[in-house]
Amino acid sequence: MIEPADFEAILHRELPLVGSFGVRVAALGDGTAVLTMPYSDTFVRPGGTVMGPALFSIADVALYGAVMSRIGHVELAVTTSMTINFLRRPRPAAVRAEARLLKLGQRLAYGEVTLFSEGLDDPVAHATGTYSIPPDAAHPVRIAPGDPVL
Amino acid sequence: MIEPADFEAILHRELPLVGSFGVRVAALGDGTAVLTMPYSDTFVRPGGTVMGPALFSIADVALYGAVMSRIGHVELAVTTSMTINFLRRPRPAAVRAEARLLKLGQRLAYGEVTLFSEGLDDPVAHATGTYSIPPDAAHPVRIAPGDPVL
Amino acid sequence: MIEPADFEAILHRELPLVGSFGVRVAALGDGTAVLTMPYSDTFVRPGGTVMGPALFSIADVALYGAVMSRIGHVELAVTTSMTINFLRRPRPAAVRAEARLLKLGQRLAYGEVTLFSEGLDDPVAHATGTYSIPPDAAHPVRIAPGDPVL
Amino acid sequence: MIEPADFEAILHRELPLVGSFGVRVAALGDGTAVLTMPYSDTFVRPGGTVMGPALFSIADVALYGAVMSRIGHVELAVTTSMTINFLRRPRPAAVRAEARLLKLGQRLAYGEVTLFSEGLDDPVAHATGTYSIPPDAAHPVRIAPGDPVL
Repeated sequence: MIEPADFEAILHRELPLVGSFGVRVAALGDGTAVLTMPYSDTFVRPGGTVMGPALFSIADVALYGAVMSRIGHVELAVTTSMTINFLRRPRPAAVRAEARLLKLGQRLAYGEVTLFSEGLDDPVAHATGTYSIPPDAAHPVRIAPGDPVL
Repeated sequence: MIEPADFEAILHRELPLVGSFGVRVAALGDGTAVLTMPYSDTFVRPGGTVMGPALFSIADVALYGAVMSRIGHVELAVTTSMTINFLRRPRPAAVRAEARLLKLGQRLAYGEVTLFSEGLDDPVAHATGTYSIPPDAAHPVRIAPGDPVL
Repeated sequence: MIEPADFEAILHRELPLVGSFGVRVAALGDGTAVLTMPYSDTFVRPGGTVMGPALFSIADVALYGAVMSRIGHVELAVTTSMTINFLRRPRPAAVRAEARLLKLGQRLAYGEVTLFSEGLDDPVAHATGTYSIPPDAAHPVRIAPGDPVL
Repeated sequence: MIEPADFEAILHRELPLVGSFGVRVAALGDGTAVLTMPYSDTFVRPGGTVMGPALFSIADVALYGAVMSRIGHVELAVTTSMTINFLRRPRPAAVRAEARLLKLGQRLAYGEVTLFSEGLDDPVAHATGTYSIPPDAAHPVRIAPGDPVL
């Protein structure tokens, strides 16, 4: 419903700070998104690693991308909650975020994001989060076997 | 390192309440565990669904199983945190929990659990959690490319 | 809007498992609830402590009480997410849960629950969670200075 | 154990990005910290509000401050997990973060942060999180009645 370049343009327009991090949209699927963020000295933490708030930022927008990949551009979709676990010390290197939706309801979307540090196989962080979808964002919710709670 | 029947016996001995729920261990892999829990009228919620605390219980012990599948039986491994999101209304039916570790460090293990309701394809809940591992539980931590944070 | 005895009766009727734990409602305020749960051998964990799922159960219903203290009895209000952190090993003793709402919106309520073990001053666990409120549960949302996100 | 001005200098040195947000340390207590962050156009979200990653950033460092207020400057203390709930739409205004520890163990510290938007009484966000403390950071853990789990 939306192309990677379009979502990238939206990010840079709607979230100038995140845009200034150089976030790129590598892929948008059907409820999935892959984003990358180059390493920057401004993300440094003692020990030469990437600080948590930078990882949170890309996780948050990656989930936003996964939502948009299903419902298109909804400006007022907002994060209502996010849990992030930091698993391994990232290298001072680019970060890749892979997001996928586990649930898209009429009012809330929920998904997970796995974060990788360039050059490491195992994830450096894992996040889960919920986006609130405005009531008037008519979107084609698929018929799912489960009766939506959200 | 541990067989499903052994883990099931440990569950029933260490966690009599969860054992009384009829939880069965379907499979233990290498950092993974699949558990099932039959439907019981005691789990009922208005609307004939399975209540949240029952889902939390099986998620918690499924993650315990995934930890034990890697480090063996460590009695004093304890949950330090757990986040659960309820995604769809479960049917009044058996529940299946699929757990997998995303990180096993010297002190903390982290993983996720996806919960299914028999007869529904999409997950009814998703949990992530951390187990604390006692310092003296010597276990063969794999050489991982990432420098463990935990 | 609802008396402790009424909420206790609802708990025992709607959530028979939690009712069987002997949960009592000590107090309901304006967006707050205090519940107690006696110690039971069925909650035992190795080391003679109270297992996590029992703590989760009382936290979940304490938050339900805090919601009901503001909007009255809404049968289909359901937990959508819950995060619990286990802070100290509980004694084999009664547990007290103190819940308070931080937000009551038209669709979602959010609050925190602090859990105490009888005889210990410091909390043994802390939980935060979100309840989804059915659209038709007309309730008097207070005029709040902040524009509700949820 | 540490003065606000010292912690502010540490922030700006260790976390240049957060420092560039203009974060100020208003107060450090005994396991508490109050930080402020001025409004900036770079934090804008559609609707003229403060974006989530900016709120996460100040929450994360406020908790860091609460930890340091008890154990002093430990450079390698790192966030291991953080859960943030966005409760109300912030105004395009300064943000104040009030953090307090609920637990300080030998290995992990846990606390909560409540976030306010200048001019609103009710909190705009609430976060809970865990910091990992390096084993060699000798610090005077108080004698607590509860046997630490963490």
